[in-house]
Amino acid sequence: MTDDRFAARRQKLIQRLRKTEAEALLVTNFTNVSYLTGFSGHDSYLLLGAAATVLVSDSRYATQIREECPGLDANIRKNTVQMHEAVARVVKKAKLNKLAIESTSTTVSQWEELETEAKALELQPAAGLVEDLRMIKDAGEVTEIRQAIRQAERAFEVMRASLVASMSERQVAHDLEHAMRRFGAEKASFDPIVAVGARAALPHARASDQLIGDAEFLLVDWGATNQRGYKSDLTRVLVTGKILPKLEKLYGVVLNAQRQGIQAIRPGVKCRDVDVAARTVIHQSGYGKRFGHGLGHGIGLDIHESPRLGPLSETELKPGMIVTVEPGIYVANWGGIRIEDDVLVTRDGCEVLTSVPKRFEDTIID
Amino acid sequence: MTDDRFAARRQKLIQRLRKTEAEALLVTNFTNVSYLTGFSGHDSYLLLGAAATVLVSDSRYATQIREECPGLDANIRKNTVQMHEAVARVVKKAKLNKLAIESTSTTVSQWEELETEAKALELQPAAGLVEDLRMIKDAGEVTEIRQAIRQAERAFEVMRASLVASMSERQVAHDLEHAMRRFGAEKASFDPIVAVGARAALPHARASDQLIGDAEFLLVDWGATNQRGYKSDLTRVLVTGKILPKLEKLYGVVLNAQRQGIQAIRPGVKCRDVDVAARTVIHQSGYGKRFGHGLGHGIGLDIHESPRLGPLSETELKPGMIVTVEPGIYVANWGGIRIEDDVLVTRDGCEVLTSVPKRFEDTIID
Repeated sequence: MTDDRFAARRQKLIQRLRKTEAEALLVTNFTNVSYLTGFSGHDSYLLLGAAATVLVSDSRYATQIREECPGLDANIRKNTVQMHEAVARVVKKAKLNKLAIESTSTTVSQWEELETEAKALELQPAAGLVEDLRMIKDAGEVTEIRQAIRQAERAFEVMRASLVASMSERQVAHDLEHAMRRFGAEKASFDPIVAVGARAALPHARASDQLIGDAEFLLVDWGATNQRGYKSDLTRVLVTGKILPKLEKLYGVVLNAQRQGIQAIRPGVKCRDVDVAARTVIHQSGYGKRFGHGLGHGIGLDIHESPRLGPLSETELKPGMIVTVEPGIYVANWGGIRIEDDVLVTRDGCEVLTSVPKRFEDTIID
Repeated sequence: MTDDRFAARRQKLIQRLRKTEAEALLVTNFTNVSYLTGFSGHDSYLLLGAAATVLVSDSRYATQIREECPGLDANIRKNTVQMHEAVARVVKKAKLNKLAIESTSTTVSQWEELETEAKALELQPAAGLVEDLRMIKDAGEVTEIRQAIRQAERAFEVMRASLVASMSERQVAHDLEHAMRRFGAEKASFDPIVAVGARAALPHARASDQLIGDAEFLLVDWGATNQRGYKSDLTRVLVTGKILPKLEKLYGVVLNAQRQGIQAIRPGVKCRDVDVAARTVIHQSGYGKRFGHGLGHGIGLDIHESPRLGPLSETELKPGMIVTVEPGIYVANWGGIRIEDDVLVTRDGCEVLTSVPKRFEDTIID
């Protein structure tokens, strides 16, 4: 990624800002700051407008900013100057009167501090400006996510090949993360979920000391973060014991639901309609109440980002969006099934980026 | 940890709430929710007051909440009900008129959504109520942190013993995290910093492909998160090449500063005075401008929590606080030195909980 790419993103955002009343936007969500600047640190804000663009950070990051963001103005505060004081100075120097602030990442306290510090400044809450840009991945970002997927998939192959009944959920989770790193990942994109049998009924179970051999199947939900911070997210079920008829039946329902969801993905379709396409299959099987979460979510620099594929989402799909499709059925005290792939919206439909086999027979470990 | 402990914490908080005008507090910081309930999930709020205490969550967590928080009221929202709608219903049912909300974790958007949804409700920003409780660790928490320290220290021994010049910073970081997990850690308490030579001048460097053998020394800043979520945080320098006189000199200054800082720690002392005790040593050596960050911070369920040992902190130390003491000197294009230990404030002074040797001769790898 060249610096030009970050400058181009900032330019796009400044154009969008022109349609609002604000003269500048204070970006307080650090992932957004990173997306707009290439800076990989933390604890920094970006003030961005037609008149001035300044990264507000502290001395821990001074050298790193010079290296990672050549040409970008930076205000390096001392440790006796608080963030809101530094922002107020930058705002004053840029002679701003109206400042939009990211309202989904700025806390009530931060807002009040800045309001008190910069009394003449009119603050306006603004949501989703950068997130809307981030929804559409450019070619470079698609390549990064493909890499994060490949790292996760190679690690899964290694884990699957080395799985034995005496391992605990936690060991499997750690081995999976270790293998992802061996294949070049920065780290896991979230703590891998490895849930044996009944524990798979908890959609967000933490890996425990329970042994793989304690039940007939396990659920694995994992992904990688590549060196640029881009993420992948997959889920598969593995059958390690005797084949339960109920498992095979529910697996078939979930797989069918997932396929219907994926088939519904193309530009112009509303996210909620993709959710409906998958949800209807599960509903018709009589398990509608056992699928309590949304169908999927965008992935990128965050593991959960816009758009959401949920029953409430009016967002229209556009080429360049990458979403997970992950229907599930969860039966308390019995277990759960979820199948998750990452899907790129293309000009005329979609491309499933993930490729771990998922027919029921593929899940069986001999 | 028994459930009684969580109930006792909630009771303490309700007592503190009585001194405010609010009838209840909406806890939106999830670490605070976890501290008060024992729930290990995510995306959940706790409404807590004398009249009603309710955990507001969603169906992904229904089973987990029953398991982890027996006896605690829970409102499990469906995926068609948004969080602020669920909170508004709970508030209405509890007949609340004045609600305090955690202002350092609630975003401007969340505040506005709840304000719009519950028009009759008076909202009051509240900062630090739970954080103030969390500052003082009880005996069980001290034990948890001791365990997280032991996990980190054993892993460091393994890493140190296996270090070779051909390893990259990233490999060392990954091996360190893998070893911590082998010793029972849930994961690293943050991405370990492994910075070779000049890269150590970046206090928050990300581990890169640079090789250990590329310079005469490296800086390692690492820690473990134990299975209960408690964290440790240490920094050591290791000398892998010829001994640079400048390195030995600066190391001596930093170590002396750290010892002075630790010596200043006892109940009743202000945090900023501990910072001064260490900072003065570095200032007198002529490197005052090369120590740009605060001296330390509390550790617990978060890697950075209250109190801060910084030049602005008026907080008084009390028995049960656990803080890092981590002075540093950073010289651009040359390198950096930091030494960090975790220190418990006791009734009559302090106890250094960490024990990795730190005399200059201890840093030398033959």
